[in-house]
This record gives sequence, structure tokens and C-alpha cells, in this order.
Amino acid sequence: MLKRENVAWYQDGAVKILDRRVYPSKVEFVVCKDYKEVAQAIADMVTQSGGPWLAAQQAMVMTAYQVQDQSVDKAKTILREAAYAVTHARPTTSERMVAVVQKVLDNAEAALEAKEAVGPSTEEFVLEQVEATYQRARIIGQNVVDLLPDKVTILTQCFAEWLIGFTLLVCQERRKNVSLICPETRPYLQGARLTASVAHDMGVPVTVVTDNMPGYLLSQRIPDVFICAADVVTLDGHVVNKIGTYQIALAAHENNIPFYVTSTPSADNPTIDTVTIEERNPEEVLHAMGVRTAMEGVKGYYPAFDITPPKLVSAIVTEKGVFSPYDLKIYWGKKQTK
Amino acid sequence: MLKRENVAWYQDGAVKILDRRVYPSKVEFVVCKDYKEVAQAIADMVTQSGGPWLAAQQAMVMTAYQVQDQSVDKAKTILREAAYAVTHARPTTSERMVAVVQKVLDNAEAALEAKEAVGPSTEEFVLEQVEATYQRARIIGQNVVDLLPDKVTILTQCFAEWLIGFTLLVCQERRKNVSLICPETRPYLQGARLTASVAHDMGVPVTVVTDNMPGYLLSQRIPDVFICAADVVTLDGHVVNKIGTYQIALAAHENNIPFYVTSTPSADNPTIDTVTIEERNPEEVLHAMGVRTAMEGVKGYYPAFDITPPKLVSAIVTEKGVFSPYDLKIYWGKKQTK
Repeated sequence: MLKRENVAWYQDGAVKILDRRVYPSKVEFVVCKDYKEVAQAIADMVTQSGGPWLAAQQAMVMTAYQVQDQSVDKAKTILREAAYAVTHARPTTSERMVAVVQKVLDNAEAALEAKEAVGPSTEEFVLEQVEATYQRARIIGQNVVDLLPDKVTILTQCFAEWLIGFTLLVCQERRKNVSLICPETRPYLQGARLTASVAHDMGVPVTVVTDNMPGYLLSQRIPDVFICAADVVTLDGHVVNKIGTYQIALAAHENNIPFYVTSTPSADNPTIDTVTIEERNPEEVLHAMGVRTAMEGVKGYYPAFDITPPKLVSAIVTEKGVFSPYDLKIYWGKKQTK
Repeated sequence: MLKRENVAWYQDGAVKILDRRVYPSKVEFVVCKDYKEVAQAIADMVTQSGGPWLAAQQAMVMTAYQVQDQSVDKAKTILREAAYAVTHARPTTSERMVAVVQKVLDNAEAALEAKEAVGPSTEEFVLEQVEATYQRARIIGQNVVDLLPDKVTILTQCFAEWLIGFTLLVCQERRKNVSLICPETRPYLQGARLTASVAHDMGVPVTVVTDNMPGYLLSQRIPDVFICAADVVTLDGHVVNKIGTYQIALAAHENNIPFYVTSTPSADNPTIDTVTIEERNPEEVLHAMGVRTAMEGVKGYYPAFDITPPKLVSAIVTEKGVFSPYDLKIYWGKKQTK
């Protein structure tokens, strides 16, 4: 699994972000010296999946250290500006990211009021939050692996960061015969470049296919299950995830293959109408690995996410247990099962 | 539309085949000096879609010229070997291609028996067959355009050669407000490189998307119709076409958008059980535009075609008219409508 220090981390006065646009052919870091550079890096998809969540929190740590010598009011203003910038770099996940970063901001403001050193306080708080994220991902992994047979071929989509990492790790701990199929996930190829690398590094047999192949694989019953995370799960059971998830879910449903979504329902998104689907620069779909594919003059179109309706989803798997997509409101009143 | 001379043509003692693996960024031809080189070029996907049909027939012309000074028996043997090699370079379309090339072989053998010059005789015969193919494609284009509204956004898949070319041309002749959406069609990107180029050259507005996007576009009702050709349409109504067609057809069906297949049912494939799905070199899916995508050690898998069942197909559009996929046997007893 990618270590958090190799995703995005505050160190020596800057946030270092692994440049996933070139990984694994190159291992390079983008070094951000202020929160604006972090926001820009998130917008530019230097990192994605869980990466922006780490990067945004680390930007808050960096900013907290940078404002330590300012007046309390000035420091608060800058920290609020930072929190807004890093959570709004991409629209689709803004509501969920605000919820996480707001806690960091609240802690920092309390530290400032109490005349504590806001830098170390924020750093410690964020470390605790990140540890909790890992712990939550492990429990979600345990809960989804509970649903899998002993010999299992998992089809996934894009790069689900720690969620797919812990799912595979728990499979290994339980000595399941697990293998993974990754659609390459154009245009950025996160499946081929990131998910496949993580699985291969863990010793899990992994096969990459192009994004036009999952339907056929499901019709041939090659995968036993389709599992992905989500950028947003709305309380009315819609799954917003990397473009392509919907058509894979359709094919899984058509072929009676279960589809599990490993993600916490978003209290900030009661219905699908509250979600904005980000459209990215159309030029990006006209290139592959940096090489232009289409003739000049041909247009592109790049919606970054799609929407899978609840009828295609077998279960939403959370750290509190397994839920029907039609029954997510009870998540917020339920205790953890493990 | 790509002129036939720019697809695959016999000239100056060799068959020149446009190298579609690098088009449109480079315009290069593979020059084949004997039928074995043509068969290898087809297997290597130097050309595809309608290209192998032209290349195979042109290989027969070249071979006919090459055997003119041989004994009749020797000439026949070589021509039969050539016919076998060029029709069996790729498995999925072999039956259909044999049917076409067998006619060329029969004509050549008759010329040899009659002591006519087999080279010019074969060349003339093939020219007539190719003209008939174009004429048939135009009529199919007319028949499918009959089904379209005046303002129409067509979603297609891969590169349907003359069939998509004539469909767009007939739309223009009838002054329809037509635009095209091309999934890029990994791993070879025929949609981005070939179909989009043909449409753009014709002045048709064209948008390229990645292969994980058609489902979302269909859910948003951006295309009005999904139209593709097929490598094989079996008499029991299954459509065998470029991998990805099945999952697009599923999404079209789910969203009540019609799916028309412009292709002649294959009398040589009464049921889907008679079709072999070609699996190509897995390394090809691990590269994009010649650049490696995944880490070394990660495996690939490359089924070249998929199977769309008749329940997802709105109509099979032929030169004899429009058929239900459940009623294809009557095609062979029916006259042309135009």
C-alpha cells in the first residue's frame, strides 16, 4: 500500500505530494510552499482518490506553522482562506472535504484562542485524524472481506487508495486466494498506474484491462465481485464515483454479480441533486500518456464522475457495517459493529 | 471518407496498406510483396475494420499476377494457399471473409482453366466486388438514416469504415444536423484516430470521449442513438463487435436509446456458438500510444471483441432493409428495398 509519506506530507516547511500523473514510470514529488500551491496541485490532479484529503490536511498544518507569528485575528483569517481553497479545488467532493478540514480549522482556532502553538497543535490533530482514517479503512476492509468467498477475483475501478489496499491486505491476512482486475481508467490511467502497482507491490496477482472490457469480463463471469469506493455516496443511495463506474455497475447487475461500494454515506449530500459533476479540461481526453491521440480540430469531453443509482448497488460497506443503498439514513444513528 | 487507395491497394507489384496503428499522427504505408506479408499485416492490425477485406482481396490480385507464368495446377495451389492465409489471419471474421475471397478464388481458377490472363481478370473482378461493397454501404447508410431525426447526435464505437462514412454522408446529403461522438476505443484508439478523423475531414462536428464515458453520456441522453457496424451478426441475432459494444448497448437499452447495427447477418454463423472471440497479445493493453502504462510484472488481458445479445439490439440495418435481431433468417430470402 502507498505509505502516507509517499502520498502527501508536510516536511521541512512544505507539503510534498507524490506526482501520480507520472507514477510509476517516474517517482517525483511536487513541493508546495503555501496552501495555494496545494489547492492548485489538487486541481491539476497531481494527486487524487485519498490523496487530496491528505494534501488538504497537510496544507492546514503548513499554514498553521506559517501563521504562528501573526496576530490571532490575522492567523484565523489566513487559516480560513486556506481551508476554503484546499477544500474547493475540485467541486464534486467539496462538501465531504469541508467536513474533514473544518475540524482541523476548529482545532487550530481553539489553539490560537488558548495561545497555544498552533503549528504543533494542528500537526498533532491532523496526525490523529489521519490515523483514524486508516483505522476506518481497515474496518471497512474487514467488513467487505466478510462478504467474499475464499477464492475471489475482484474487479475494481480507478484507485480506491487505502480502501482497496486494506481490502487486499485483509484478504491476505485471512489467507484468501485473491486476485484483482483493474480497468486502466482513462484518461489518467489510475487503474493501470496506481491500483495495479499497489496490488503488485503487495504480491496480489493483478490484471489490467482497458475501460471497454469490464462488461465482457462480467458477461463471462471472470470477476466474482465488483468493488469500488466512491467520491460521494448520497443519503438517497446514489454512488458518485470515477466515470465508468455506472456502466460497470450496469453490467455487474445484468450478470448477477454483486457490487459493493466501500464508502461512508455523506450527511452533507441528502440527495443526488446536491452533487455537482465536475467537468475537466476536454484536452485531457485527447491525449494518452502525454501523446496526442486525435487529429487537431477534433473536440473532447471530460466528465470526471458518473452516478450509479441505488438499484444497481448491492451494498454500501462502511466502518459501521453493511447497508442497503435504500437504507442509508440509519447509518448516522448506528454504532460500529467491530 | 478514407479512399480505398488509402486503405489497402495493389499497385506496382505490391499491396500498399495504410498503417492505421500510427495514423493520423503519421501517414505511412506498409508495402507487402506477397500474400504472407499481407496476412501478417492483417494479424498485426496494420489495418482493421473494412481494411482487411480490401487487403485480402488485393492480396489475391497480387498473387494472381505473380502466378501468371506458372502451370495451371501450380497457380491454383498458390492461389488457394493465399486465399487461406489472408482469410485466416484473424479468427473472428474468418467465415465471413472466406465467403468473399472464395468468389475471387473461383473467378481466378475459372480464368486459369480458360487460359485467360489471371492477373487482369482477378484485378477486374475484385474492382467490381469492391464497387459493390461501396454501393451496399451507401444503401445501408440510406436505410439507417431513414430511422434518424433531423437533428441527431450519433454515438458510435470503434471504426466502421465505409458504413459510418456513408451514414454521415447521407445525413449531409439530406441536410440533417448531424454530430458524432466517438469513444476512443482502446487499446488501438481507432475511435480517436480513425473515426474522428474521417468525420472531421467530412466537416461533421465530432467529440471524442474515453471508453469509460459512454454509459454516463447515455444516462444524460446526450446521444440520440447508438450506431455501430459488426464483425459478425449471427443468424440468432447476436452482435459480435469491437470490445466495449456490449456495455454501451446495455447502457443504451437501460436509457431507452435505440441501438442500430449496420451489418449483414452472416449465413455462415447460424448461432453465437460458431463464433470464436479472438484474444490478442496482452502486452497491447499495457501500452497507450506506444508508452507503457503499468508497472513491470502487472499482467494484461485483451479480448478483441464482445457479444451483444439480441435483446439489447433495436434493429439490424442491411442493404435489404431493417430487420429485428430475432428475425434474421428471412434476410436471406428477401430482396433489396431500394
